[in-house]
Amino acid sequence: MASMTHSSLPLVFLCSLFYVIFSSFCYCKSVSSITIDSLRASLENQEDFIVFSLIERARYPYNSFAYDPFFLGNQNCSFVELFVRETEAMEAKFGRYQNPEELPFFPDYTQPQLAPPHKFPNFILPKILHPPAASANVSRRIWDMYFNDLLPLFTKKADDGNYQQTVASDLICLQALSRRIHSGRFVAEIKFRDSPQNYIPAIQAKDSETLMKLLTFTSVEEAVVKRVFKKAEIFGQNVNLGKNNVKEAEDKGIESKYKVEPSVASKLYQEWVIPFTKQVEVDYLLRRLI
Amino acid sequence: MASMTHSSLPLVFLCSLFYVIFSSFCYCKSVSSITIDSLRASLENQEDFIVFSLIERARYPYNSFAYDPFFLGNQNCSFVELFVRETEAMEAKFGRYQNPEELPFFPDYTQPQLAPPHKFPNFILPKILHPPAASANVSRRIWDMYFNDLLPLFTKKADDGNYQQTVASDLICLQALSRRIHSGRFVAEIKFRDSPQNYIPAIQAKDSETLMKLLTFTSVEEAVVKRVFKKAEIFGQNVNLGKNNVKEAEDKGIESKYKVEPSVASKLYQEWVIPFTKQVEVDYLLRRLI
Repeated sequence: MASMTHSSLPLVFLCSLFYVIFSSFCYCKSVSSITIDSLRASLENQEDFIVFSLIERARYPYNSFAYDPFFLGNQNCSFVELFVRETEAMEAKFGRYQNPEELPFFPDYTQPQLAPPHKFPNFILPKILHPPAASANVSRRIWDMYFNDLLPLFTKKADDGNYQQTVASDLICLQALSRRIHSGRFVAEIKFRDSPQNYIPAIQAKDSETLMKLLTFTSVEEAVVKRVFKKAEIFGQNVNLGKNNVKEAEDKGIESKYKVEPSVASKLYQEWVIPFTKQVEVDYLLRRLI
Repeated sequence: MASMTHSSLPLVFLCSLFYVIFSSFCYCKSVSSITIDSLRASLENQEDFIVFSLIERARYPYNSFAYDPFFLGNQNCSFVELFVRETEAMEAKFGRYQNPEELPFFPDYTQPQLAPPHKFPNFILPKILHPPAASANVSRRIWDMYFNDLLPLFTKKADDGNYQQTVASDLICLQALSRRIHSGRFVAEIKFRDSPQNYIPAIQAKDSETLMKLLTFTSVEEAVVKRVFKKAEIFGQNVNLGKNNVKEAEDKGIESKYKVEPSVASKLYQEWVIPFTKQVEVDYLLRRLI
């Protein structure tokens, strides 16, 4: 842990290093290696982290101060918004958004200030997205859903003063949800490549409704919702050295057996994650022939 | 999501807001409400988050670029060190270290630059720590253990280019470990208050060895290690809609049943978390009569 003055010099140096490393970097995945099955496996994995992130956020009460709007100049703002904006700007400097799976909530603040974007060749992930369609984005809807609908469902109405820790947990939830939902762009691209003839007529007719029907597989969606419920049961239980933890909690009459109610996790998927992901897929496909 | 220029103005405003809120804030816990039992419950809860954080880190391979030292000025530095330093400095501005449970790894960089410390009355948690002893700190040992010993045990030797996401996950692990280990200061204070006569002779004799013996309860430690193993088994399994996920993975001959081997989590506690916590307790007690 070397001590030195806090300056922007490190980032200039880093950018050069990045460039050297990236330039000698081999493609870690080829376009052909991405399939609907590998994407599904990745989405399934992401469910774990979404459930973990809800459980982590539930350590803190609601902490309304973090969300109360206040005037800043002539704009409404909030503690959480300031925090997310500053964090994203900093993470951008360290290269977070060079990975096309990651999208910032405040893109206006995330331009690397010390390294022009062209210094970072974007080949961590294969360039599989169709450029005009890659901008399909529901960040604003995710933000509003998270704060208006989801957060009050799984946090206690109280205040413990840990505002920074609270909004840092919020950002982890938001980033996990955004990554999951915006992966709809990759899903749509792979589905389109696999059978373009299925989608082209509806895309040409700008027929969102038909596209939505083509992208809907009710039995798969139901299985996802059930699996997420089960994950919240398993990951959110109070583990002790007894054999059956949930049963034990019931016997002791413990108020809540789970750190986050499994029904909240499954509702999150049923009402928001799955519909938003399909919306991203439709938005993507509508721009796929541009 | 209002758009406005990125400036330091928000933080000045925030500091004023913080002051107003804190000034009207009631003490959320009284000294008398903190007992060894309530502390143990908190430590038990923290185990979940430590296991989650390891599982989250294990999503990414080792990514050695993030740890390779390079020269910056006349000092050795690394990508992860730069990231942690910048993140801590930013989190400090948002008040993270006003909570005495949180300790930065790079305290030289975490002074709130826009708000003098006295503007933040420190009463989120009760001031139970004895001031000269509160500085008991093993951050450097945690840092070295994490990167030198722990990380290679549960990450794949590979590189996927997600360096920012990787070091952000590292920081989450480090913060969870630091909070758990430095809670030894609170444990030591409560134990001392409960029966000062047990500790005073050894403290006066500066007898670390006797203090360590007084603080060692082998059966409790063994139970903690077993519980952490069980948590890693439960939280790190691949959940699907079958009845017995681990059994199913075994039947399918899946390479690793768990996202992080449970033996790594229990080793972490046995070899490092418990000994480091006790070291913090001893260091604290040695300064308790100053």
